[in-house]
Amino acid sequence: MKLIKGVVPPMVTPLVDNEHLDERGLERLVEHVLAGGVHGLFLLGTTGEAPDLPYEVRRRLVQRTSEIVAGRVPILVGVTDTVFTESLKLAEFAKACGAAGLVAAPPYYFAAGQPELVDYYTRLADRVPLPLYLYNMPSQVKVSIAVQTVVELAKHPNVAGLKDSSGNIGYFNACRYALRNDPDFAILMGPEEAMGEVVLMGADGGVAGGANLFPKTFVDLYDAAVAKDVDRVRELQERVMRVSSLIYGIGHHNSSFVKGVKCALSLMGICSDVLAAPREPFNARDRELVRERLVELGALSAQ
Amino acid sequence: MKLIKGVVPPMVTPLVDNEHLDERGLERLVEHVLAGGVHGLFLLGTTGEAPDLPYEVRRRLVQRTSEIVAGRVPILVGVTDTVFTESLKLAEFAKACGAAGLVAAPPYYFAAGQPELVDYYTRLADRVPLPLYLYNMPSQVKVSIAVQTVVELAKHPNVAGLKDSSGNIGYFNACRYALRNDPDFAILMGPEEAMGEVVLMGADGGVAGGANLFPKTFVDLYDAAVAKDVDRVRELQERVMRVSSLIYGIGHHNSSFVKGVKCALSLMGICSDVLAAPREPFNARDRELVRERLVELGALSAQ
Amino acid sequence: MKLIKGVVPPMVTPLVDNEHLDERGLERLVEHVLAGGVHGLFLLGTTGEAPDLPYEVRRRLVQRTSEIVAGRVPILVGVTDTVFTESLKLAEFAKACGAAGLVAAPPYYFAAGQPELVDYYTRLADRVPLPLYLYNMPSQVKVSIAVQTVVELAKHPNVAGLKDSSGNIGYFNACRYALRNDPDFAILMGPEEAMGEVVLMGADGGVAGGANLFPKTFVDLYDAAVAKDVDRVRELQERVMRVSSLIYGIGHHNSSFVKGVKCALSLMGICSDVLAAPREPFNARDRELVRERLVELGALSAQ
Amino acid sequence: MKLIKGVVPPMVTPLVDNEHLDERGLERLVEHVLAGGVHGLFLLGTTGEAPDLPYEVRRRLVQRTSEIVAGRVPILVGVTDTVFTESLKLAEFAKACGAAGLVAAPPYYFAAGQPELVDYYTRLADRVPLPLYLYNMPSQVKVSIAVQTVVELAKHPNVAGLKDSSGNIGYFNACRYALRNDPDFAILMGPEEAMGEVVLMGADGGVAGGANLFPKTFVDLYDAAVAKDVDRVRELQERVMRVSSLIYGIGHHNSSFVKGVKCALSLMGICSDVLAAPREPFNARDRELVRERLVELGALSAQ
Repeated sequence: MKLIKGVVPPMVTPLVDNEHLDERGLERLVEHVLAGGVHGLFLLGTTGEAPDLPYEVRRRLVQRTSEIVAGRVPILVGVTDTVFTESLKLAEFAKACGAAGLVAAPPYYFAAGQPELVDYYTRLADRVPLPLYLYNMPSQVKVSIAVQTVVELAKHPNVAGLKDSSGNIGYFNACRYALRNDPDFAILMGPEEAMGEVVLMGADGGVAGGANLFPKTFVDLYDAAVAKDVDRVRELQERVMRVSSLIYGIGHHNSSFVKGVKCALSLMGICSDVLAAPREPFNARDRELVRERLVELGALSAQ
Repeated sequence: MKLIKGVVPPMVTPLVDNEHLDERGLERLVEHVLAGGVHGLFLLGTTGEAPDLPYEVRRRLVQRTSEIVAGRVPILVGVTDTVFTESLKLAEFAKACGAAGLVAAPPYYFAAGQPELVDYYTRLADRVPLPLYLYNMPSQVKVSIAVQTVVELAKHPNVAGLKDSSGNIGYFNACRYALRNDPDFAILMGPEEAMGEVVLMGADGGVAGGANLFPKTFVDLYDAAVAKDVDRVRELQERVMRVSSLIYGIGHHNSSFVKGVKCALSLMGICSDVLAAPREPFNARDRELVRERLVELGALSAQ
Repeated sequence: MKLIKGVVPPMVTPLVDNEHLDERGLERLVEHVLAGGVHGLFLLGTTGEAPDLPYEVRRRLVQRTSEIVAGRVPILVGVTDTVFTESLKLAEFAKACGAAGLVAAPPYYFAAGQPELVDYYTRLADRVPLPLYLYNMPSQVKVSIAVQTVVELAKHPNVAGLKDSSGNIGYFNACRYALRNDPDFAILMGPEEAMGEVVLMGADGGVAGGANLFPKTFVDLYDAAVAKDVDRVRELQERVMRVSSLIYGIGHHNSSFVKGVKCALSLMGICSDVLAAPREPFNARDRELVRERLVELGALSAQ
Repeated sequence: MKLIKGVVPPMVTPLVDNEHLDERGLERLVEHVLAGGVHGLFLLGTTGEAPDLPYEVRRRLVQRTSEIVAGRVPILVGVTDTVFTESLKLAEFAKACGAAGLVAAPPYYFAAGQPELVDYYTRLADRVPLPLYLYNMPSQVKVSIAVQTVVELAKHPNVAGLKDSSGNIGYFNACRYALRNDPDFAILMGPEEAMGEVVLMGADGGVAGGANLFPKTFVDLYDAAVAKDVDRVRELQERVMRVSSLIYGIGHHNSSFVKGVKCALSLMGICSDVLAAPREPFNARDRELVRERLVELGALSAQ
């Protein structure tokens, strides 16, 4: 049986400053997404800026979120790290806090070859105390987990699924096809711009960054797709595309998606837009642009 | 109104040798795909090995195919070239042969910037005598036609659509969303591994290489998607994935997709597997593998 | 014995318009570089915009240049093409015009694997009537000719050398080391920013684009390097870097090097700055910048 | 005045297992390179597998090496990290241990834009208690520090130089040219395959991984280059190329350089070949190959 299905927001990490969680913001954010009906939370992914967060902040985030969620939905914790023992330590900590599963992208300094990836994930899955999800994220880690590598790793009893953020639809569908008969292996789509259609085709769900902002939209979309209601999927997917085109394209760098989501959350009164050092939030001009577009989306009143 | 919708196979170019068409093979191939019900043909794309074909062969292909098709379906002709005047000359020739439209990827030696792409396509669209489709193919030409560039070019009265072979589903959906209200601009998916789902979501069709082999499968898939029959789409898409996983993964180089399709067509008795120089067909071992898999797919009898 | 050593400018192609050579400009350009003492000319390379030129213009360029040079220095002709037979035809034509050698980068649409490159160059070297130089240009053709591939091809009696434009110094030195005992195989550096040092270390010369503008500087640099006069090499290389930093950095796209060189030649009264379609010359603002910098370099008077 | 010039080996990190230094090996390694006359040591770079080492191991390495070196040569410590505060903590620790300088590559998960790099290095240089070297390593961190960014950062009083491991000779020479008049800014070449020639041209030295194995060869090479003895540079550079071609090409993955150096050091009786988890040392077959080649190089007796 699959551990998790549905909409699992990759949570942003609300910060007061580089070393401290915005704990009130975190509380509001968790309640906001749970109110939207999401099926689980994914902490410490790319949207969560995990690799750039001090370890103490990562642990505090896992602990506090677990306390706030209090078992209402399962929590997945990202343990991606270049240091193998740090992944193990965080995995143990996550288990102690009550997390349901772990997620790991390949180590991201030395680019691993496919046999090295098999070896890496096997060792990790052998030692961590919770089910492990593979996290395919080639744009950040320079390598893609090949379809054959996914297939081989899926045989490991502690490998529970794949989160694919490549955006490569041929790859995603090849993984899904190859593992279509595995009743325990979940395949989740990263980019929210494709969540609707892949669930319609049988995928298990999506790790949609925009669900930080509009969780209900994504839950409705997932439900419509599971119900094979094509018209409703089209309609909701159009709303997702509208958010994507209005909010994520502001700013110029690799991290502008995160900046956009945090800025919008801040404008919506949910949490701070402070980013992990050394990144800065949007400047006043970009922030004003986000505000205007949230008004356009009906997520803020025009004042 | 959109010039073309549905399944448009990017036709392989049957060859006797590097300088001569396999004309009997071409005839069989055209009849094979037309019998499958395809909605148009696309000549001289990547699957057609266009950039590597002698110009005389390109012209002969356009002429002979037009004669064979004799107006039964519209024909699109690829005019991608690094030499601007060669694109224009082939466009005129295509028009004279009765083609319905043209397709052009960006010039592929100097990597163009986005303003250069706007300029390039504007000039081309200004001068060619048939509607022009943009062909996004970053893996071969090193640049992607940005969403904003597509949007800008879509305003040109002679730009008729986009064929996207990037495989990047976020990009594809962003283009489709941006141009959702343009009644004349068609958006076609390149990778066949995603054709079903994007048509279900409202895309106009697919340029599926596998439709050279199994045209009816793709036409059925398209029809099911247009009818919003999700179960049937899933079922047929699964067959597409099966072909993809069995036939296209043989061989190691950038051109192995073309080699696989031509080898299969040759084994199915349709046309020769000769490739444009200096590429060689599959060796005996790989050919035998393709044969076994075609038997497995039910496309050949076991003998 | 090596066919060619020293400074071999990759000649720009002076154009009146996209379909016609600027023949007077060509004459002035050839005399300009010959007056500087260059050891050979390389026609129809990247700087020559070869892949974008109509075939008739390519042939006319080879013919006219041969007539102008009249045997004073050897001429190398680029035959890079995606169409194998076009490479062969141009090679025959070059031979008929009296060229000394040929240069070919890998085919640039389908990215060839290393075994395919061995095969490609072997076939080409077998059939062309003049010595063939390998042209490593990964930024444009997407693949690098691996060191082992170069070593294998160097055994072919008709493969005469390597022009490496990768800018990867480890690769260049590995090729040179691997072939250090081959008395017939020439290794030429593409980027002029490194010509001095590699000749000092024993390389055979450079294909320096800037030698279109300042041929004597490069010849002096080559001579100083051959004479192992380190101080003089440093001094001249510094001038090369100055030109590079002032002229080539203007403009934003992949072709801005060519634009800069053509613009400077036009300002120096040598030839037209028309580019192969669909590229445009620098606009007035960029042209003024080039003018100012040529004054700064002492190549134009301030007026 | 430049803080450091000459040969600065990027030290491998000898390990007993993933969590413990091979302290006896470290001692032998340090004495081995100091006996060769190197001008400084660089700890915790790519060759040192820094991003993959547990933090405790990093600190222990800095402390023990400082004790062993005991001021005989300056020590540079790599503080590259995705977590800003970890860079700061290690910088303080390095200072306390008596290190002379720090080295940092860009954060390597989110790819920074150039303005972000200016911001990042400015903040880092503002806060660390020792001179900071920029470390350009695009193959691992996905971004190159642009020439203009280097020039801008060089103005910061606490930025002391650049280690360029890009292998892009045009980039290296452009940086050196741009900063030729800065008496305090050192420019060091990463790839050892080019150290000789760039020092001949005026660069400040090299961070040559092979100096772990053959420190005296690199010191002799550096001295010959400083003395402008071209023939001697050629001769020694040829030995460097021989080592490079024999030892570094074994193995297939991104980390095979490190594996090759550690394997050779182990065979030479200097230190263990254990790698940071989850990487494995060469298998018996590759190890035997390294042994044979060390014999061929005269670094091991044939037994």
